[in-house]
Amino acid sequence: MLQPGERIDQLYSQGVQIIQSKEVFSFSLDAVLLADFAQPKRYSKIVDLCAGNGAVGLFLSQKTEGSITAVEIQARLADMARRSVRLNQLTDQMTVLEQDLATITEKIAKDSVEIVTCNPPYFPLSALSKKNPNPYLAIARHEIKTNLATILQVTSDLLKMNGKAYFVYRPDRLSELIQIAAEKRLAVKRVRLVYPKVDREANMILVELIKDGKLRGQRFLPPLVVYDQHNHYLPEVQRLLFGDGQSHD
Amino acid sequence: MLQPGERIDQLYSQGVQIIQSKEVFSFSLDAVLLADFAQPKRYSKIVDLCAGNGAVGLFLSQKTEGSITAVEIQARLADMARRSVRLNQLTDQMTVLEQDLATITEKIAKDSVEIVTCNPPYFPLSALSKKNPNPYLAIARHEIKTNLATILQVTSDLLKMNGKAYFVYRPDRLSELIQIAAEKRLAVKRVRLVYPKVDREANMILVELIKDGKLRGQRFLPPLVVYDQHNHYLPEVQRLLFGDGQSHD
Repeated sequence: MLQPGERIDQLYSQGVQIIQSKEVFSFSLDAVLLADFAQPKRYSKIVDLCAGNGAVGLFLSQKTEGSITAVEIQARLADMARRSVRLNQLTDQMTVLEQDLATITEKIAKDSVEIVTCNPPYFPLSALSKKNPNPYLAIARHEIKTNLATILQVTSDLLKMNGKAYFVYRPDRLSELIQIAAEKRLAVKRVRLVYPKVDREANMILVELIKDGKLRGQRFLPPLVVYDQHNHYLPEVQRLLFGDGQSHD
Repeated sequence: MLQPGERIDQLYSQGVQIIQSKEVFSFSLDAVLLADFAQPKRYSKIVDLCAGNGAVGLFLSQKTEGSITAVEIQARLADMARRSVRLNQLTDQMTVLEQDLATITEKIAKDSVEIVTCNPPYFPLSALSKKNPNPYLAIARHEIKTNLATILQVTSDLLKMNGKAYFVYRPDRLSELIQIAAEKRLAVKRVRLVYPKVDREANMILVELIKDGKLRGQRFLPPLVVYDQHNHYLPEVQRLLFGDGQSHD
């Protein structure tokens, strides 16, 4: 079941096992926070874009009975995700599509989805000179195969009216996210800033968008601070990573 | 020097005295945080819009030698601000204009200002049913005499290229602020979320805008949390209100 260099990881707070690879793709805190931030209903129809090795969808399978479709353009990563789905016996709930998200409405009907989640590539092509030499990671992190405008267009196309999208992104592109989202009929509803430490600038942002929602009224949830001054996880993150049991840091 | 119902208040952290009135206008934490957030240079030309009783400009006079023009539409408040300027012997540095900001470029040249500060009315007219029965406070808090689009247009008109504006606002209108600002050539550069407590949603937002700046690259400063769990000010706010001396809460 495992390819060379792969391993099986498990979040102690979650029942799912996830096939990872240092050389190809491993989920990080972004995916854990995104899956925690998303609020699917019991039978929501969910699409996870830029799915990577499927981590977000696999985590979400623990909080909903709804169908989950993970969309990933890289064959190697889609294959890892598919094997994780089988490993966790989730083939009835979760499907992996190896496909460019730009053409996904050929497979998933427009205006049919309740929840879209996405951990998109953060870096614009203009930052390409600094891009990762590993092609798998470069595509996951840089806007090589897709970009924010395309992702938001597809998100809007997929969602039903009042359907919701959950994104994890970088604070330095929030203005852009808000403006492009508005052009695609997506309004910001809730935001949570993630700060590495209480006295540091935010380095991640969790955003809930709603299709055809109001421009006003967005809420900024309590700050999520990851580490204390001694580089130990603060309780909320500790619980997400390790559950209510023993500390593993 | 004082009208009936007025008193003179002083921030323990600042040298300035401010004429206030419970019935007409008193500055609140918003103004203190805004003046702290703004970063005038030593000789910046500063305009404070929606100046109220002049608190923001008076506080700023303690951190710059630049000229400060406070613009306030309400005669009664402009008069209070003017008397505070005299009381603090700041007539050489600070001027109060009783004027609708929409016509301010008749008095202050376009593209001539380095810093604009503004603590605008937070509530759109659609919230007017809940408006304050006190007409002074209603105008200060609701978009009766002006609105966000006008304020941002005037801010942009006044600022030099790469001039900066500092706003304190409500989180529920950040999307609107970002979008309208972009239409007026103002890009978000720095944001600071203010949370009443560490486990509560943000209730204020401090925003630095730059004229003709880049859409990308905004920074979210460390969270500013006002109170601890026992409703005591946390150290940063304590220092702003009371200086480094004795606690006064």
